[in-house]
Amino acid sequence: MNRVLVLGGDGYCGWATALHLSNAGCDVRIVDSLARREWDQSLGIASLTPIRSMERRLDVWNEVSGKTIGFENGDLLDYDFLSSVVSDFRPDAIVHFAEQRSAPFSMIDREHAVFTQHNNVIGNLNLLFAIKEYVPECHLVKLGTMGEYGTPNIDIEEGFLEVEHNGRKDRLPFPKLPGSFYHLSKVHDSHNIHFTSRVWGLRATDLNQGVVYGTVTPESEMAPELVNRLDYDDVFGTALNRFCVQAAIGHKLTVYGQGGQTRGYLDIRDTVRCIEIAIDNPPEIGEYRVFNQFTEQFSVSELAKLVQSAGAELGLNVEIENVPNPRVELEAHYYNAKHTALVELGLKPHFLSDSLIDSLIAIAVQFKGDVDLGTIAPRVDWRNPSNALPRGSAMVSTV
Amino acid sequence: MNRVLVLGGDGYCGWATALHLSNAGCDVRIVDSLARREWDQSLGIASLTPIRSMERRLDVWNEVSGKTIGFENGDLLDYDFLSSVVSDFRPDAIVHFAEQRSAPFSMIDREHAVFTQHNNVIGNLNLLFAIKEYVPECHLVKLGTMGEYGTPNIDIEEGFLEVEHNGRKDRLPFPKLPGSFYHLSKVHDSHNIHFTSRVWGLRATDLNQGVVYGTVTPESEMAPELVNRLDYDDVFGTALNRFCVQAAIGHKLTVYGQGGQTRGYLDIRDTVRCIEIAIDNPPEIGEYRVFNQFTEQFSVSELAKLVQSAGAELGLNVEIENVPNPRVELEAHYYNAKHTALVELGLKPHFLSDSLIDSLIAIAVQFKGDVDLGTIAPRVDWRNPSNALPRGSAMVSTV
Repeated sequence: MNRVLVLGGDGYCGWATALHLSNAGCDVRIVDSLARREWDQSLGIASLTPIRSMERRLDVWNEVSGKTIGFENGDLLDYDFLSSVVSDFRPDAIVHFAEQRSAPFSMIDREHAVFTQHNNVIGNLNLLFAIKEYVPECHLVKLGTMGEYGTPNIDIEEGFLEVEHNGRKDRLPFPKLPGSFYHLSKVHDSHNIHFTSRVWGLRATDLNQGVVYGTVTPESEMAPELVNRLDYDDVFGTALNRFCVQAAIGHKLTVYGQGGQTRGYLDIRDTVRCIEIAIDNPPEIGEYRVFNQFTEQFSVSELAKLVQSAGAELGLNVEIENVPNPRVELEAHYYNAKHTALVELGLKPHFLSDSLIDSLIAIAVQFKGDVDLGTIAPRVDWRNPSNALPRGSAMVSTV
Repeated sequence: MNRVLVLGGDGYCGWATALHLSNAGCDVRIVDSLARREWDQSLGIASLTPIRSMERRLDVWNEVSGKTIGFENGDLLDYDFLSSVVSDFRPDAIVHFAEQRSAPFSMIDREHAVFTQHNNVIGNLNLLFAIKEYVPECHLVKLGTMGEYGTPNIDIEEGFLEVEHNGRKDRLPFPKLPGSFYHLSKVHDSHNIHFTSRVWGLRATDLNQGVVYGTVTPESEMAPELVNRLDYDDVFGTALNRFCVQAAIGHKLTVYGQGGQTRGYLDIRDTVRCIEIAIDNPPEIGEYRVFNQFTEQFSVSELAKLVQSAGAELGLNVEIENVPNPRVELEAHYYNAKHTALVELGLKPHFLSDSLIDSLIAIAVQFKGDVDLGTIAPRVDWRNPSNALPRGSAMVSTV
């Protein structure tokens, strides 16, 4: 039985992954500082679905599944804490979701930019040292983002590029053009991890994940208390989930700029399966590999139209509005990113379907009374970092 | 008259640059926390040449030149301090040397790795925000390192690579393979700076500097109290300077491994001139440009042989010893790095000569009674970060 530490197991992807791996027979222990709950409070936002306490979640999981997930409450910035967990549990694999994962959050102002890069880069550095010190053969499964690549005018490969230049050849890290201080933090992580594979022989899988949609997995459906997050606000809400909530409450779908921004997307049921596949197929000692973890490409306008048409089937009159783009990004560009490695290892993608959009809208309708309209319009401006959002307790822990 | 802020103006390159720019007619203000002096103490090392207090250095400079250099004692991690200096002085250019610049220092142990990345990355982030907030048209002249590139099997270009891939083309950041947590911190800085040029329109010159040698510049020769650092220890000593000190005291030249490691080198007189050239030829608003700042390539073995033969001319019997390499790096590899941009802007290189090596050895002989033999052999092992060196006060300031 694989012992798997899930860092950030209280978050959107982390919770679904912890349940999935536990159900698949892994011995799972979650590490989380519950910082995401603090950020919600400091920003005045909340998941539309009601998230129970970690203790309650784990008790209910034990009741419905008969399986136990362990939990350690602490921060990766605290090396004494982290190293004691690693040396005690001696994981075969560590899945690392425990980073600040919102681009707008990182662009609020200087404090949030510094917090994001400090939290993510130093937390990850501490983790690399803990692995080196206590479990050097442990497989690090690190969540990166497709946003590390940006939108180059060439095909995006999985982490590396075969370069031919002036008659010589090499296989080099794919050049990066990240679009926020958050995306930059993931680029920094990738370079740090790659280095430790070369110098210390650590083994790691860097998963450059696309935008995740959906909220339901087979495990989260086993009890209402196991429900996953559904974020629709301007800071943590991702495009498709936010559009479905907007459709449910009769709000126009807010497409930033022209809407030609194209990205990779995947269903959260594929996220958890990709993690499992990575764990079941570990890299060699000293190997650093990169998988592009998404299943389909869409432009933002295409997504909005899909939600509009699914809404019409449900009798909803969904309108689309192009609002000024708060981000600095190309709004019409070439985009062709490879994503074959995980499929070759056995991933059977859930492609985006009307029924998935229907079910997301249905969940949003169920909770529509809890929607806070004031948190939907973009408040963070890439060009002008300022105090658009209140500075909160999240910043206090910047040590 | 250009107003130039020199961050890290108490260090090896920073001090020489501050004097040179002042002599060239710039209104220079130094910002430095004097951290380098603390690190010396915490590691039990020292410059072979005696370094005076900053106050004394500046007084003597004023006496011999008639020019005044201002000084602000503080840390870039302190944003209130940094932003007040920037908003008060309103520089036309900021030369940023204020980073922990030793690869071995960053590889001592976890604390030193974390300190290096935190100090460098967050200090530089703070600087970017201060520029954005107070002097958005100011030209940032940032010291990077040729070590960002590592040793790829293709020609190294100046910052960007024209890529043709599957029939499409783009000009993308040159892929990076840094060889220590220090070199990684510079890669992170480069990505952060490049991003702010794209998003905020900042203008910056990223100088990927080679290994600097020499200690004398025309300005530092104007009075003994203006003497520059000469580091020969295993942590801060750079190859050629260290070899000259070893030759002077009858110590074998310690070549790490096979000695085929090839890097770009330059005379400190060219360092200061390159900075001046960059300032005199600023990039456009929103432009991020990269210059490879070195003048010649040598392998470590070639350098050792040059010192050996120059020593023989001086009647010294200099031996070369290949010691186990504490670093993880290729010891025989292709290396061809471009460095034409600065020459095209007017740099007239000082190529490495016997007379330069003679003068370095002569300085080392002058101070040979002060050499601490215990600090020459490598104590930091890339493969096994540990407490090879005492943890010192340098770590206390990690906030």
